[in-house]
Amino acid sequence: MPMMPVTDSMFLLGESREHPLHVGGLQLFELPPGAGPGYVSDMHRELLTEVDVQPLFRRRPRGPVGSLGQLAWANDDLLDLEYHVRLSGLPTPGRVRELLELVSRLHGSLLDRHRPLWEFHLIEGLQGNRFAVYTKVHHALVDGVSALRLLQRSLSPDADERGMRPPWSPRMRTNAADSRPRGEAPPFQGLAAAANVVRDLVGLGPAAAKYVNQAFREQSATLPFEAPKSMFNVPITGARRFAAQGWPLERIRAVGAAAGATVNDVMLAMCAGALRQYMLELGTLPDKPLVAAVPISLRAEDSSSGGNAIGLILCTLATDLDDPADRLAAIVESMRRGKQFYDGMSQLQIIALSAIPFAPLAVALVPGAVRLTPPPFNLLISNVPGPKAPLYWNGARMQGIYPVSIPAEGQALNITVTSYDGSLEFGLTGCRRSVPHLQRLLAHLETELAALEKQVL
Amino acid sequence: MPMMPVTDSMFLLGESREHPLHVGGLQLFELPPGAGPGYVSDMHRELLTEVDVQPLFRRRPRGPVGSLGQLAWANDDLLDLEYHVRLSGLPTPGRVRELLELVSRLHGSLLDRHRPLWEFHLIEGLQGNRFAVYTKVHHALVDGVSALRLLQRSLSPDADERGMRPPWSPRMRTNAADSRPRGEAPPFQGLAAAANVVRDLVGLGPAAAKYVNQAFREQSATLPFEAPKSMFNVPITGARRFAAQGWPLERIRAVGAAAGATVNDVMLAMCAGALRQYMLELGTLPDKPLVAAVPISLRAEDSSSGGNAIGLILCTLATDLDDPADRLAAIVESMRRGKQFYDGMSQLQIIALSAIPFAPLAVALVPGAVRLTPPPFNLLISNVPGPKAPLYWNGARMQGIYPVSIPAEGQALNITVTSYDGSLEFGLTGCRRSVPHLQRLLAHLETELAALEKQVL
Repeated sequence: MPMMPVTDSMFLLGESREHPLHVGGLQLFELPPGAGPGYVSDMHRELLTEVDVQPLFRRRPRGPVGSLGQLAWANDDLLDLEYHVRLSGLPTPGRVRELLELVSRLHGSLLDRHRPLWEFHLIEGLQGNRFAVYTKVHHALVDGVSALRLLQRSLSPDADERGMRPPWSPRMRTNAADSRPRGEAPPFQGLAAAANVVRDLVGLGPAAAKYVNQAFREQSATLPFEAPKSMFNVPITGARRFAAQGWPLERIRAVGAAAGATVNDVMLAMCAGALRQYMLELGTLPDKPLVAAVPISLRAEDSSSGGNAIGLILCTLATDLDDPADRLAAIVESMRRGKQFYDGMSQLQIIALSAIPFAPLAVALVPGAVRLTPPPFNLLISNVPGPKAPLYWNGARMQGIYPVSIPAEGQALNITVTSYDGSLEFGLTGCRRSVPHLQRLLAHLETELAALEKQVL
Repeated sequence: MPMMPVTDSMFLLGESREHPLHVGGLQLFELPPGAGPGYVSDMHRELLTEVDVQPLFRRRPRGPVGSLGQLAWANDDLLDLEYHVRLSGLPTPGRVRELLELVSRLHGSLLDRHRPLWEFHLIEGLQGNRFAVYTKVHHALVDGVSALRLLQRSLSPDADERGMRPPWSPRMRTNAADSRPRGEAPPFQGLAAAANVVRDLVGLGPAAAKYVNQAFREQSATLPFEAPKSMFNVPITGARRFAAQGWPLERIRAVGAAAGATVNDVMLAMCAGALRQYMLELGTLPDKPLVAAVPISLRAEDSSSGGNAIGLILCTLATDLDDPADRLAAIVESMRRGKQFYDGMSQLQIIALSAIPFAPLAVALVPGAVRLTPPPFNLLISNVPGPKAPLYWNGARMQGIYPVSIPAEGQALNITVTSYDGSLEFGLTGCRRSVPHLQRLLAHLETELAALEKQVL
């Protein structure tokens, strides 16, 4: 096994109890027709027979664990599948609330570095004839977007397909290219490609962090606002809170059509209103509006590959405004200006700027790096496009899929949404200590969408 | 808050992912008559109202977390009881097997150092009209024996008593002296007192480790055997396996009476036979017999306080012998010689030797300490006396209580037993990687006891 590229080992060396660097995904499934009470535990037993594990899921860090210095990857010849593939039950009454509590705990503990850096949790006891899967993979193996894609690709659009393989199997039904170890994988379009480039920047150390920081300032300077200090921009601890819920894209599109806004704009307005209400209740709303960092897909002008590039827009959330429609209008305008900022830029420039969403992570990873004061933005809100049609796992229909992300030093809350089967799925991941009562944001998201519907429809 | 004594901070500084230094206890309870399906979650909700927390359970380490140097304790003013007091469910079918799997996982993850160093897990979904409690406390707060006592003292011998307080409440019904922070607590009789002394020795660093090691060699020299290298005497990882089961003391006493052996001797013979069978199956049984380190209570000759002292006996497990009765006889003889070794010793000498059970821990904690080769013993087997009568928690009868201990570097398996209500309760804690199929040992323990019954009764 080769030495790790420094870009991989950074994610291992930069990790601590306070900053676990794994990404996660939560999937909800309907039990297929005729499934008995032993369906999930039978599935668990069956998954444990899938002992053929592809290389990515057999890698573990070798060498002085926890110490400084270059690390190497080793193949785990003693892979203990029972350790990685776990069955959990929910306490009664088995609502989504109990599920989110469990996922919060699972996401807050570190992966064991003596083993391949992943866990796959089957969860039974969920109300409404459902079960759940929570998957946890270290960022040194795959980034969040690739992890979501990997989960999606292990499913089938065919409700009648059986004999499907789990994500760790080398015989997975679809092309498993994106699950290849980093550095060996072909470039992946979209956010993941940006992430790859950014990892290289991160690998360059403090110089890159400084460069990225400069790009921020440049964009900030073109905008009529800057981010206030907020409760989210603090040192974080290791424990997590996770909340998740989906909303019909139809409702969001209807609001967008009436207000001249995109789905992304309305999603941001929902976040804005929810965050305002949440911070008002806690008495922590800053006078100045919150600023979100929002990655968007951009067509590169000089792209010969025809691919996409990702730009980062610093967008006001207009949390100083009282009226939902006013907030949405401010967000639409802010996003328009942000996109204008990228007009006529080269792909290289865009790629350089695309480093920005990962900058807080980069800065936190560089030992001794200076904390940014004031914060360049208050939180990262990403929207990762997902599959439009329903997907199935051996006949069990996936109801929803929610990203579980990485809060970073100075970025105690992360919102990542993804679309699936006519629904926009929100995953909110926060530092447990800094972001209390995270689940309240779910209720506030609904309140905000309903208010927008009332105003603009 | 004062700086920590170095003996406390050693347990924090010496901790790593591979060597979590918390102790645990698993308690099984019967649901009281008339308990509905919401009994355990109601109890959880009620426990969350017990926000008055005694100082020991409000302490957290302050200062540079994870770094070297003296640490201080701080009071956690933001104590988040919901974080510490957790409700979990078991997957179906909810056997003891699923419970042990969950406890293994819970015991293998590190406590969050940003918070007071304890967790209290209520576990529902256990077959046979039962529920369980797993408690986890950092060794820097209390040692294992004190933790067990603390759990016991929070219970009542009265089945009709209600309104009882949880272990973290300062208004707990019984005298809470032993749960006082270390250094402030009065000396506790028995094993805990020895542990206190030993912590002081540990605090002295490498010199003490060397001294303790010397004491070992002295005792070894008087014995006709020495410990072979074995599968248990290897570097360990952070994940754990835990297995637990109780046996009627009546059965064990009957064998002892017929064979001229103590309960402790028969317990050791059960372990010996079980370990022999286990290692035979794995093909790892050494030619030379395994040696157990067994702490025993000794009457000190010059004790004016009339208290007990603890001595450590290096006892052969006679795993080279095929016959169960022969093994028991060898153990009885070995224990007799071991006790003889302490005859006429001063209390000081005994206390010095009592450092031995903790020596592997001490050695592992001292940076750069030399690994002992060959191992001074193969595993530590402790017997902590417990209450004779049944205990209740607000009307729920405790069925069993099992110690969950700390495997150490070079000591991948720990067996701790305790007695309760006519039963001898075995808790086996192992490194998950080094000690596969730990639960097989439970079946072998029964096989061995049955074989002894057949031979000697």
